[in-house]
Amino acid sequence: METKKAVNQISGRTDLAVELQEDIKDSGSVDGIRIITKVHPNKQMKETHITIENEEGERKLGKPIGNYITIESDQLCEGDTSYHEEMSETVLVHLKHLMKQKQKILLAGLGNRKVTPDSLGPLVVENLYITKHLLENHMIKEGKNMAAVAPGVMAQTGMETSEVIKGIVNQTQPELLIVVDALAARNSNRLNKTIQISDTGIAPGSGVGNHRKAITEETMGIPVIAIGVPTVIAVPTIVNDAMEQLLKALGKLDTKKVLESFSDEERYALACEVLKPHLADMFVTPKNIDEEVKTISYTISEAINRFVIS
Amino acid sequence: METKKAVNQISGRTDLAVELQEDIKDSGSVDGIRIITKVHPNKQMKETHITIENEEGERKLGKPIGNYITIESDQLCEGDTSYHEEMSETVLVHLKHLMKQKQKILLAGLGNRKVTPDSLGPLVVENLYITKHLLENHMIKEGKNMAAVAPGVMAQTGMETSEVIKGIVNQTQPELLIVVDALAARNSNRLNKTIQISDTGIAPGSGVGNHRKAITEETMGIPVIAIGVPTVIAVPTIVNDAMEQLLKALGKLDTKKVLESFSDEERYALACEVLKPHLADMFVTPKNIDEEVKTISYTISEAINRFVIS
Amino acid sequence: METKKAVNQISGRTDLAVELQEDIKDSGSVDGIRIITKVHPNKQMKETHITIENEEGERKLGKPIGNYITIESDQLCEGDTSYHEEMSETVLVHLKHLMKQKQKILLAGLGNRKVTPDSLGPLVVENLYITKHLLENHMIKEGKNMAAVAPGVMAQTGMETSEVIKGIVNQTQPELLIVVDALAARNSNRLNKTIQISDTGIAPGSGVGNHRKAITEETMGIPVIAIGVPTVIAVPTIVNDAMEQLLKALGKLDTKKVLESFSDEERYALACEVLKPHLADMFVTPKNIDEEVKTISYTISEAINRFVIS
Amino acid sequence: METKKAVNQISGRTDLAVELQEDIKDSGSVDGIRIITKVHPNKQMKETHITIENEEGERKLGKPIGNYITIESDQLCEGDTSYHEEMSETVLVHLKHLMKQKQKILLAGLGNRKVTPDSLGPLVVENLYITKHLLENHMIKEGKNMAAVAPGVMAQTGMETSEVIKGIVNQTQPELLIVVDALAARNSNRLNKTIQISDTGIAPGSGVGNHRKAITEETMGIPVIAIGVPTVIAVPTIVNDAMEQLLKALGKLDTKKVLESFSDEERYALACEVLKPHLADMFVTPKNIDEEVKTISYTISEAINRFVIS
Repeated sequence: METKKAVNQISGRTDLAVELQEDIKDSGSVDGIRIITKVHPNKQMKETHITIENEEGERKLGKPIGNYITIESDQLCEGDTSYHEEMSETVLVHLKHLMKQKQKILLAGLGNRKVTPDSLGPLVVENLYITKHLLENHMIKEGKNMAAVAPGVMAQTGMETSEVIKGIVNQTQPELLIVVDALAARNSNRLNKTIQISDTGIAPGSGVGNHRKAITEETMGIPVIAIGVPTVIAVPTIVNDAMEQLLKALGKLDTKKVLESFSDEERYALACEVLKPHLADMFVTPKNIDEEVKTISYTISEAINRFVIS
Repeated sequence: METKKAVNQISGRTDLAVELQEDIKDSGSVDGIRIITKVHPNKQMKETHITIENEEGERKLGKPIGNYITIESDQLCEGDTSYHEEMSETVLVHLKHLMKQKQKILLAGLGNRKVTPDSLGPLVVENLYITKHLLENHMIKEGKNMAAVAPGVMAQTGMETSEVIKGIVNQTQPELLIVVDALAARNSNRLNKTIQISDTGIAPGSGVGNHRKAITEETMGIPVIAIGVPTVIAVPTIVNDAMEQLLKALGKLDTKKVLESFSDEERYALACEVLKPHLADMFVTPKNIDEEVKTISYTISEAINRFVIS
Repeated sequence: METKKAVNQISGRTDLAVELQEDIKDSGSVDGIRIITKVHPNKQMKETHITIENEEGERKLGKPIGNYITIESDQLCEGDTSYHEEMSETVLVHLKHLMKQKQKILLAGLGNRKVTPDSLGPLVVENLYITKHLLENHMIKEGKNMAAVAPGVMAQTGMETSEVIKGIVNQTQPELLIVVDALAARNSNRLNKTIQISDTGIAPGSGVGNHRKAITEETMGIPVIAIGVPTVIAVPTIVNDAMEQLLKALGKLDTKKVLESFSDEERYALACEVLKPHLADMFVTPKNIDEEVKTISYTISEAINRFVIS
Repeated sequence: METKKAVNQISGRTDLAVELQEDIKDSGSVDGIRIITKVHPNKQMKETHITIENEEGERKLGKPIGNYITIESDQLCEGDTSYHEEMSETVLVHLKHLMKQKQKILLAGLGNRKVTPDSLGPLVVENLYITKHLLENHMIKEGKNMAAVAPGVMAQTGMETSEVIKGIVNQTQPELLIVVDALAARNSNRLNKTIQISDTGIAPGSGVGNHRKAITEETMGIPVIAIGVPTVIAVPTIVNDAMEQLLKALGKLDTKKVLESFSDEERYALACEVLKPHLADMFVTPKNIDEEVKTISYTISEAINRFVIS
């Protein structure tokens, strides 16, 4: 979750391309952004494939050029095993497509294993089928070459996560990097119900005060696929939503003038302002976050394990 | 944290007597409630001792008759070791006073060890000096008889936590029960900066729909001391605070009528209403909750360990 | 693993009925002990069903009257998912048979979650489908009523594990108790490759110095099924084995007299004697014990979860 | 513990210089090895300072040229807080001496956090005062620049631990590397009662089949200090010890010839041979290893934290 702050400063409090895209009203016709939506009738699953094709799209959506696949399902965080096999299979299909035949992979499970909603990355690493040492010592003969690391967060290591990963990439020379991370959503309905897969890595932008470095093909020297699941909402986002509802309610009374006097941006700024400063660094998460994160981590590691033995 | 919901339904979104007392404007003169405040000049620590003396006090504050000692300090969640020795000593003094010479103690560390802000109770248990088996097998000769259990939460066990503890109390016959639990606060400034010690146990009240049973002298058959630390804020509380600020801001514009049209209770109800239903079950917690909970758990277990060897 | 010591004192360093039975040379004809063996040709699995029918059998095998089903397979601790479904199914069949239509179950995951080879019980609890609270609050309508607890070990709680469980049983009134525990084996080939299911509970015997109480139908008041997996070997057992080999080797040289001068019992006593006293309290476990225990815990919790929804 | 195997192959089943030195009978007069012993009368602590001065010493002791400080105390794994402050202070004195004014440090906590006796390194990292990011972001002004990482073991990552660390060292450019690791001892009396500090790093030697790389100044490019605590004994070591005792006992009977027919090396080879092959990969550890490792990890992290703020 470390990289999110900067993302949010730029893009408006979400790590999900699918939520950013909702801001663009008539998105179908936007130059530089292509959107394909697919609803699985039986699987109760919705896929949205957003392609940002050029700099205009990049500027409009606030995300780098590339592919963003979002898989949404209410059942993602529920315990039904048979469903999760289908979900893993769907994730696998998209991973395979984006991975383009790479054989030697490093997966980095980002986040703090000691903070439940941020433990997704480390949990995925725990259940991976690691093969690099087995292949290189001739203990197995087939499968992809998979290594993994859970580098911890800056509060634990003192180091930029991107620096730790770059050092390991330089030393061990994988062909592809997968990063798995917990994300922030804007809409609480998407919490623990969405998987985003992109081929752009994690790019916190270049805003002033951004000391954290990107984990992208540009910085790492190899392609980077990012898998993310929104597990938290920033406090200002929740407050902003509530205020929007409140203003609507007030508007119904008589204060149409009041309602109109706030633009979206102004209202979000107000939400930040009315909050005590330290609240901006807090997050909102469900009470059963332990069960939900565990369940989702299995689905993701299962998808990657199928890829490894494929 | 399991018992909090019912508490909040009755008392208005806080488990802290010191916050409830703030609602009673001219509290000094309230019949049935006695308040003593003490500020430590050097220790940067504030103690508030609230005594609810009778049913009138009980009704007014929404908490049972008994003593509520609140120790507040900005440094509680910080890593300065020397400070924590003083804090442990202060907690010890109050514990000793409330424990009244009991020698055989069971401590129950409530909460879910897998959800970081709810792991306070289990963490305290992990660092306790347990002596019951050592004394009874003659491996040590002195000290209090201390046993402990981390019973888990209902989502993990399927059982009421109160039932699990009552069974163990009946079987092992301690003279006193200490329960340690994470609490919900209303004011984000108190998060991880307050320890509340009371001799009333945990009494979620008798509201409609309250299936969870109290952990009190009445239900357990032995005195119960509760030690709690607020580690989360309920989402409606945060939103309510924000709306209060917003209404003030709007009021400055021109909508004095609007501002006046909401009582405190109406505004809280509105905060709940404008929230999507599932948000009412979410909580707000700081990003470094892992470090803060660990630090506080040491302070509490150290205070109890000093009691055990005293 | 807490209860093992006493078991070993009586029975000779193993918790497995199948190993005790090996000591009885011509076991087929022993009065009071019935043994049925079944080898699954495709599943690479061997089942041994030992029934101790009367007190003579009890005395001979050093285990209480009852059924002991042992499922052995080299693949139990390996990561092949499809195999584990078959294994879970086999465990389920035996569980169903022993459970005799009981609907309200408490499972106790014994052991210390902080000591890897002893964490089997707590790990099984973590992955159980708990339904008691869901059924009783009408959130689900079907399935067995399943509750669970991981009571910890005496070093953590100060209390006899049997006391903790008895208190919870008395208070919550289940119809059946399942205990899951890590065991000690004699033969290192059985480590993490054997599941023992019995309907006798855990009975550490009544040897001098045995302060730990049994978890049996007699003490709990309800039927008790024990599921155990050997994850450790006691140090004297390993040394004894080695000495046996050594004496054989020496015997080949010339010291036939020496070899003959030690009975089995004498040699085990010698093994204990040549060890420094504190070594008797140590255990032997494989380096990858974390992976193996995790894998086995899934197989067991999966079997029980299938039972719950059946 | 990963690197130990190779060490043991060469040096005879211990990672402790102080145990290797015991093999050299009249060590006082050995060329190239200097030994100073110091017994603290009040602290119940013994320090042994072994300096390997040249290649002859290196060859004789089977350890590289450098300093090996061993601090032994029965109380190291016990819970007495006041004692641990003295122990931390002693460790600090030696660390300071070996560190030679380096200001920018990376600590790597080696080992597998999921296997209790191997979790020492990761536990030390958890309690460190990490300052690198605070200093570099001007949030604090004083103290050493401390970063840390718990890289996991090859079974978890697929990568050589030395490769992971080398990558991070190259990228983040510390001036000094400290590695903390669980070790193997030969003498069970030293288990969890000894801290070894050396300035030679971890050098598993260059034996045939050694695929694991050293973590030394030569491979890392910066000085490496290793802090190790023996938490396990290899199974062959235990068996060898037992056989030694057995042969002595037999010798007393009549088989003097037998006793003399085995050299030390032959007896160890025999110990390996009489063991089933998979036993060679198992380890022996005490039952309360969780408490002991936790206690020792605090002592070490406290020593390093004092260094950081000094």
